[in-house]
Amino acid sequence: MKSKAAVAFAPGKPLEIVEIDVEDPKENEVMVKILYTSVCHTDAFTLSGDDPEGVFPVVLGHEGAGVVVKVGTNVTDFKEGDHVIPLYTPECGKCEFCLSGKTNLCSAVRETQGKGLMPDGTTRFSYQGEPVYHYMGTSTFSEYTVVNDINLVKIDKQAPLDKVPLLGCGVTTGLGAVENTAKVEEGATAAVFGLGAIGLAVIQGLKKAKAQRIIAIDMNPDKWPLAQKMGATDFVNPKDYARPIQEVLVEMTNGGVDYSFECIGNVEVMRSALEACHKGWGVSVIIGVAGAGKEIHTRPFQLVTGRVWKGSAFGGVKGRTQLPGMVEDFMNGEIDLDSFITHHLHFSQINESLELLHRGESIRTMLTYGGE
Amino acid sequence: MKSKAAVAFAPGKPLEIVEIDVEDPKENEVMVKILYTSVCHTDAFTLSGDDPEGVFPVVLGHEGAGVVVKVGTNVTDFKEGDHVIPLYTPECGKCEFCLSGKTNLCSAVRETQGKGLMPDGTTRFSYQGEPVYHYMGTSTFSEYTVVNDINLVKIDKQAPLDKVPLLGCGVTTGLGAVENTAKVEEGATAAVFGLGAIGLAVIQGLKKAKAQRIIAIDMNPDKWPLAQKMGATDFVNPKDYARPIQEVLVEMTNGGVDYSFECIGNVEVMRSALEACHKGWGVSVIIGVAGAGKEIHTRPFQLVTGRVWKGSAFGGVKGRTQLPGMVEDFMNGEIDLDSFITHHLHFSQINESLELLHRGESIRTMLTYGGE
Repeated sequence: MKSKAAVAFAPGKPLEIVEIDVEDPKENEVMVKILYTSVCHTDAFTLSGDDPEGVFPVVLGHEGAGVVVKVGTNVTDFKEGDHVIPLYTPECGKCEFCLSGKTNLCSAVRETQGKGLMPDGTTRFSYQGEPVYHYMGTSTFSEYTVVNDINLVKIDKQAPLDKVPLLGCGVTTGLGAVENTAKVEEGATAAVFGLGAIGLAVIQGLKKAKAQRIIAIDMNPDKWPLAQKMGATDFVNPKDYARPIQEVLVEMTNGGVDYSFECIGNVEVMRSALEACHKGWGVSVIIGVAGAGKEIHTRPFQLVTGRVWKGSAFGGVKGRTQLPGMVEDFMNGEIDLDSFITHHLHFSQINESLELLHRGESIRTMLTYGGE
Repeated sequence: MKSKAAVAFAPGKPLEIVEIDVEDPKENEVMVKILYTSVCHTDAFTLSGDDPEGVFPVVLGHEGAGVVVKVGTNVTDFKEGDHVIPLYTPECGKCEFCLSGKTNLCSAVRETQGKGLMPDGTTRFSYQGEPVYHYMGTSTFSEYTVVNDINLVKIDKQAPLDKVPLLGCGVTTGLGAVENTAKVEEGATAAVFGLGAIGLAVIQGLKKAKAQRIIAIDMNPDKWPLAQKMGATDFVNPKDYARPIQEVLVEMTNGGVDYSFECIGNVEVMRSALEACHKGWGVSVIIGVAGAGKEIHTRPFQLVTGRVWKGSAFGGVKGRTQLPGMVEDFMNGEIDLDSFITHHLHFSQINESLELLHRGESIRTMLTYGGE
């Protein structure tokens, strides 16, 4: 099958829209026609070449939604025509991780997925006869993609496919970090570092959890109005202060915040987020992905005096189990996705959407594969 | 009142047994005749001069037990003759911390206690007319000491005062770190780094929690028999391996331990302890006190993939509320204190007990103030 795709041929280069070949799904695999995809910082991070696990050429993309067009052998949960969201965090339901009841990090296809391969060790994508790698088990930057059935969830056919791609990564990650990882309680005080899609989703999650005070921190005040719309109550620009921002926050909150969230991927901000927490009980959650080789650091006294340092991947959400409910919540108006979509472009303009993201002008650009 | 005391006149020097003057207790203060005291690494740490908060001259000591001899005004919970254990972690029951339900770190006297002073900003100890500082709100290295009533707990008069000093720090810290901080569940796998009193108490706590596998790690195999007696099931000497010990442990446990405990105070071991934890759910608890300026560090990926980094002070135990019950548990045979007491010496031999500790020959030396 021929498919339009935005291929990353080499790190640091723009994506190239080309026609690739997509093989039929094999055992336990599903071919999906992607109708909409958005672009996340993680795609940009891998494209930049800073991701040590990045392999090229590759079809990036992990926030998408579409329709099943073909299923491989042994696929029982999907049939042609099903509406679906690809999941970069799979859920096999059988591995030690899935059965633990303690984590969403399924290990079933970890090794091959990390290498850009399907579980049989090959790729379903090729260009001019040469293999093109998969990405995060999803590769939504190809109109036709092949994913494992455990990397896919069926959703309500009424759900708007031009909105729900955001539940494939950013929004779910932010909401889940509040609910599953931090377990924020009513009346809490929280600080959110970085007002991209994840930070905004964290703010939305904090509002849902009835946090009393939600402090939004970003060096770009243009992001504040949207943060306020999501529920932020206070705004801090680190550029306004000469001293460490954690000191400012501890002072503002008379001892520190109950919860903090790092949504940038900067190890120094991760330290600030931890140290902005209240002695005795403050919990800091790392969500951002740091560059290769970067390390977090702090004095152990910070932890011995009761602060907790955690992290969250895909918000601790088990995609196949929980995403259909989140889609329903969106359709019932309990989750706001619309506010995140600041731009709409055609898939052929994908490099422009990356530029918008880099310049901090967009939160999310929704790309459509339909009509030009 | 004249009192025999071991005074630390200067960092890095042996303690000097001298006769000091002890003033009467003031408002909310209690004078205690210490009958037994043990020596902990924290005393040695402050004596060494490495503790940035150390002040001299000072009466060290924070693991003791004795009898109330005099109470100041406004003291309602104690009377002459009460058997008591001094608490370096006070419990006022009224501050933001005590009322939070989330921590044992009472803040009522934090500032003055950290400076070696009583809440009125003065000391009750003096030598040749010059003030001698208090230590950790306890100063059990003076036969007569003065403490705040919130730094003291009354215990059963039947409890052997030559054993219960261990509940004033090391043993409570270890047991509490397992129960309150890590909340270890039945069947868990755990690693314990450092087999001093705290590490051994952690092992005892893990056995009480019915952990399935308890891996004891120490470079001194002489410590293993006692660890085994406490409940350790496996023994690892980092010296036996060229590669990082966390790799060894991850391999031994097929993915990492569910819980790890750092009981040394070495920031590199703290990293090993975290990285020895299982992806998805491993919890690492820092108990050891690191040297001034030392920092922990790791790749944030360790946390993003589900490990949790915490710390514990006095095992999360609220001393005034919980210690009487722990004394009962000891008297009922549910807590073993006897095995920790490897040596008995007279108080006048306190420098010898420090030497035993430094050389790793003792776990705890119980010092008596009585007869020579």
